[in-house]
Amino acid sequence: MSWTIDVDQVRPLARGAAILGTGGGGDPYIGSLLAAQAIREHGPVTVVGLDELGDDALVVTAAMMGAPTVMVEKLPNLDEVVASVRALEHVLGRTVSHVACAEVGGVNSTVPVAAAAALGVPLLDADGMGRAFPELQMVLPTLYGVTASPLSFADDKGNTGVLTTVDNTWTERIARVACVEMGCSVMIAGFPMSGAQARESLVRGSLSTCVGLGEEIAAARAEHDDPVRRIVERLGGRELFAGKVVDVERATTTGFARGRARIEGAGGDLVLEFQNEHLLARHDDRVLVTTPDLIIVLEHDTGEAITTEGLRYGQRVRVVAAPADPRWHSDEALAMVGPGYFGYDVAPHRFDGAAAVAA
Amino acid sequence: MSWTIDVDQVRPLARGAAILGTGGGGDPYIGSLLAAQAIREHGPVTVVGLDELGDDALVVTAAMMGAPTVMVEKLPNLDEVVASVRALEHVLGRTVSHVACAEVGGVNSTVPVAAAAALGVPLLDADGMGRAFPELQMVLPTLYGVTASPLSFADDKGNTGVLTTVDNTWTERIARVACVEMGCSVMIAGFPMSGAQARESLVRGSLSTCVGLGEEIAAARAEHDDPVRRIVERLGGRELFAGKVVDVERATTTGFARGRARIEGAGGDLVLEFQNEHLLARHDDRVLVTTPDLIIVLEHDTGEAITTEGLRYGQRVRVVAAPADPRWHSDEALAMVGPGYFGYDVAPHRFDGAAAVAA
Repeated sequence: MSWTIDVDQVRPLARGAAILGTGGGGDPYIGSLLAAQAIREHGPVTVVGLDELGDDALVVTAAMMGAPTVMVEKLPNLDEVVASVRALEHVLGRTVSHVACAEVGGVNSTVPVAAAAALGVPLLDADGMGRAFPELQMVLPTLYGVTASPLSFADDKGNTGVLTTVDNTWTERIARVACVEMGCSVMIAGFPMSGAQARESLVRGSLSTCVGLGEEIAAARAEHDDPVRRIVERLGGRELFAGKVVDVERATTTGFARGRARIEGAGGDLVLEFQNEHLLARHDDRVLVTTPDLIIVLEHDTGEAITTEGLRYGQRVRVVAAPADPRWHSDEALAMVGPGYFGYDVAPHRFDGAAAVAA
Repeated sequence: MSWTIDVDQVRPLARGAAILGTGGGGDPYIGSLLAAQAIREHGPVTVVGLDELGDDALVVTAAMMGAPTVMVEKLPNLDEVVASVRALEHVLGRTVSHVACAEVGGVNSTVPVAAAAALGVPLLDADGMGRAFPELQMVLPTLYGVTASPLSFADDKGNTGVLTTVDNTWTERIARVACVEMGCSVMIAGFPMSGAQARESLVRGSLSTCVGLGEEIAAARAEHDDPVRRIVERLGGRELFAGKVVDVERATTTGFARGRARIEGAGGDLVLEFQNEHLLARHDDRVLVTTPDLIIVLEHDTGEAITTEGLRYGQRVRVVAAPADPRWHSDEALAMVGPGYFGYDVAPHRFDGAAAVAA
């Protein structure tokens, strides 16, 4: 069943996507601006489900690559979005039929809306992760043998490039250094897929889930209910911890926003480790949740997601955990996105709903 | 008039090119190996003069990009050479009709021979500099408005990329970081030119000059004559200094081999500053020669060029200066390749034949 994203749906989409973005994927407000502008200029975007996709479709993912700390200062523009897809089409020798989200996140769920609007093609109700991750090879399609390349990138100055690489990690490596040199924020388009490949490898219904989460927050507020509780129920997750942000260490290095946040609560301190996204939640010496499961920081009362670059001293927050797409827990997937890959000497903890700090 | 490069011409070509390469452009022996292998596999290469070029020609430059210190340890291969040109042709939607040298130098005069052989197209008797320089935008075609992009790069693993940039300095910046990430040595193809653009902007007869210089060395030796004197005469240059290398500082940083060499002679010390190529020659506090003019280090007796990465303590050398193509002395050109660009606080000294250390 297809549906439409008009300007009014952009805000709930971005708000919900920022929750699943687990701290990464960029600021939802910035993402909303770009998508709303594109819809105003080019009309609403049709969203189609994976089952409606013909086998001869040419699906590409559109995303912003870079450090979210930079994205908040350098607003993306529509020309870059279109330039990256056009550069890719030129190398493919074919016109893109559908745009998909590589990940969910405040910017990377709305950049594809902008791309679909500007290109006049439908957007898939799907994404490549069911959450956000910091490197471009970290999508389920990689596990299904879909190649990231040809992958294109475009910056705000008018520079573009198209890579064809031997594996998706090399796409990440070369695109990342180009991105850093180009100012730490570029638009990318890649992972060209047939309809069959998209159906097999993407996470179904992601955009519907995001809009639903965004609307849930609005509804809870209207009903004077607790938005966080309702988000937790929708995600099949659990509230881990509540407290005040008392320390944030952050550095933008090699194109990522890396750091650590400490949250002080009734039951001691919760420490979150992040690299664009939250990757590890630790209470005293006990690891509660690890990547690939979702670690989500929400404003205590409003339930709005806080991105890792938005974390500030004194914020009152609630930390929620939720299970990742089960395919992220295979050995091959954990080698790509488990805690060991990010340098944490911790075994992956599969979220079982029980992880929480004793009250 | 066209002529042919067979396996026998490769050695004199590389030997002569290493002289004009002013210390850069890579080791002539390594360049010879690749070109000789390509000629053995694909047959000799036809060399054509600029005046024989039709206006509808599609000329591209082929070169190796990277730090010469790395090139000597990681031998280039023919697959990379062909892959870079094929990636460029794919984006251009046209087949290349002629290959040209971007610069003269031990590797970058022979890589194009290998490319022409493997592709089965003629090579131009010309190059983009009349010497070697460390950055890709530093060619005379840049001064004539020829764009470096689309520019392709290919590594030994099978990765390729094609850049389309807003100016030639951006091509350099993005290609350089990609090159460093890919192992500090890639093959590039770019500067697509019409026949008219090539005739206007390239340096005429470079390959003939290189082969002539290489043959001059051989002839001088056979006749027990001084090869250095004959090289100096051919170049319209002057011998600056003779002595022993007593100190070499060198670091491979940001993709370049940067450093300084001190040569002790009868009249004091000569200091050479280099970044892949020799850029400045200083005697005590007196600057004798600056980029863009040619500073050439030759083995004292044999006249063989010594590359900057080949400089070693104890070598007995003679340092020769020669005038660059006069187009390198315009204000616009000096802004691109003068001593100031490389961070030396020295006014450009135009070589006048008089620069030499008093005997």
